[in-house]
Amino acid sequence: MLSDHNTFAFLNDDFLPLEGAFLHVSDLAIQRGYGVFDFFKVQENQPLFLDQYLNRFYGSALLMDLEVPLTEEALKATIERLIQMNGLPESGIKMILTGGYSANGYEPAAPNLIITQQPLTLPSPEQIDAGLRIITHDYVRELPRAKTINYSMGIRLLQQVKAQQADDVLYHRGGVVTEFPRSNFFLVTKDHTVLTPDKDVLLGVTRRNVLELAGRHYQMQEGTVTLEDIGRAREAFMTSTTKRVLPIVQVNGAPVGTGKPGPVTMHLLQELRALEEAQLKAKPD
Amino acid sequence: MLSDHNTFAFLNDDFLPLEGAFLHVSDLAIQRGYGVFDFFKVQENQPLFLDQYLNRFYGSALLMDLEVPLTEEALKATIERLIQMNGLPESGIKMILTGGYSANGYEPAAPNLIITQQPLTLPSPEQIDAGLRIITHDYVRELPRAKTINYSMGIRLLQQVKAQQADDVLYHRGGVVTEFPRSNFFLVTKDHTVLTPDKDVLLGVTRRNVLELAGRHYQMQEGTVTLEDIGRAREAFMTSTTKRVLPIVQVNGAPVGTGKPGPVTMHLLQELRALEEAQLKAKPD
Repeated sequence: MLSDHNTFAFLNDDFLPLEGAFLHVSDLAIQRGYGVFDFFKVQENQPLFLDQYLNRFYGSALLMDLEVPLTEEALKATIERLIQMNGLPESGIKMILTGGYSANGYEPAAPNLIITQQPLTLPSPEQIDAGLRIITHDYVRELPRAKTINYSMGIRLLQQVKAQQADDVLYHRGGVVTEFPRSNFFLVTKDHTVLTPDKDVLLGVTRRNVLELAGRHYQMQEGTVTLEDIGRAREAFMTSTTKRVLPIVQVNGAPVGTGKPGPVTMHLLQELRALEEAQLKAKPD
Repeated sequence: MLSDHNTFAFLNDDFLPLEGAFLHVSDLAIQRGYGVFDFFKVQENQPLFLDQYLNRFYGSALLMDLEVPLTEEALKATIERLIQMNGLPESGIKMILTGGYSANGYEPAAPNLIITQQPLTLPSPEQIDAGLRIITHDYVRELPRAKTINYSMGIRLLQQVKAQQADDVLYHRGGVVTEFPRSNFFLVTKDHTVLTPDKDVLLGVTRRNVLELAGRHYQMQEGTVTLEDIGRAREAFMTSTTKRVLPIVQVNGAPVGTGKPGPVTMHLLQELRALEEAQLKAKPD
């Protein structure tokens, strides 16, 4: 990030070069890992599904007793201005809200708001064709409904993921599947139901959009998913802002279904792309 | 912290005014709450039990796959220099090691090391006489043996603690007691055994010292402690670097023992102070 000399960021009241965006070490993110964030895509210089991401951002802040220093209207205007300044038509925008400069290193103060924009690489056709190999780990996030900055477990598991030549790790608690560190999990059952966990998961914006799209063509259900269910599934996939819909072909060394990306998965990816296109076209220039 | 104009901090390679100690927003503590820390007391310009704290700091870093950029010898020399520069004879020193300036906001890079020194207020005689009233909450830290910067739960519970006019919150998992967000828990049983939880707790330096002192005068045990055990206990207390030994007189509204600081608690506080004095005297000037 330090080398992006022409990119601007927003910090509290000011737009400034990203390379000059610093927080004092008394910030509660540094002292106590305390903060929330959100992240959305920009395509053709337009933010996608912005209202849904902002809703969740304000919701996460509320769950962590933090107040976003800007109204939703002012935040939208700030985002629009940042997009104009940076000229990064295909990118991701991240908003981080921390516990602020704490006087005693423990109690939250006036939050610091950071907004950064970075070029974004979406999965390539080759990555989609290959699909993902994943492992599993028994863990549930502390406050699953909030998008907090706490990724200690996911980051610690990076080495294990690499050692097992996998692409990601799926959390479960006692065999009941929840989510990936940064994505939601779906499977397609033998009777062609599109199923995703409903408890202890982050309510992903892409998850919600894919559920709605699935409901137009298939049986669709939010409910309990177990590791055993994966063994019996036809297909599995993950959803996220940056990954869209990405097939999962292997779990803990065992193939999912045929061991190749499935037709329902690929259909939903196509549908999601179409939804994104439709939103871009619906926007006034 | 921003107003301490005459205090110096250490950041990576440099001593600099604390007010000028900043991290770029790409640091993994800000992006993902990823880091470890430790904290020790300075009395009469001498660090107390420094070897034990440094051992734990290097241990926490290892558990989180972070490398402390200084050898233990170099770190000690840096701490000595900071103490000389700041002239804060009664103070606390905090070392924070973060995941560093991550290129992709997720994978750790070269860690950032921050060392700050701040004046310290120890419990007053009145606070010790009054003792603490505490509540309980079902929660266990993700990686209890590591002193990570993740205090989301403890900080979120601050409002609940205040609303119930309590002083702190004790974690348990299904009735099995572990620790406070920033302190260890002890009780004195009916048969005068000094007992502290052994599983899923941070191995406090003060905890270890108090256990050793207790072993000289009483039965001493590390083992399972339940919420029911507290109801049957004679005394209870917490230990921490800043709190030393602090009596607990009430748990969830019910008195512990007589509802006043107990003799074993007060004896162990006296013994701990004596141990601190002895360490100060043993040091070469």
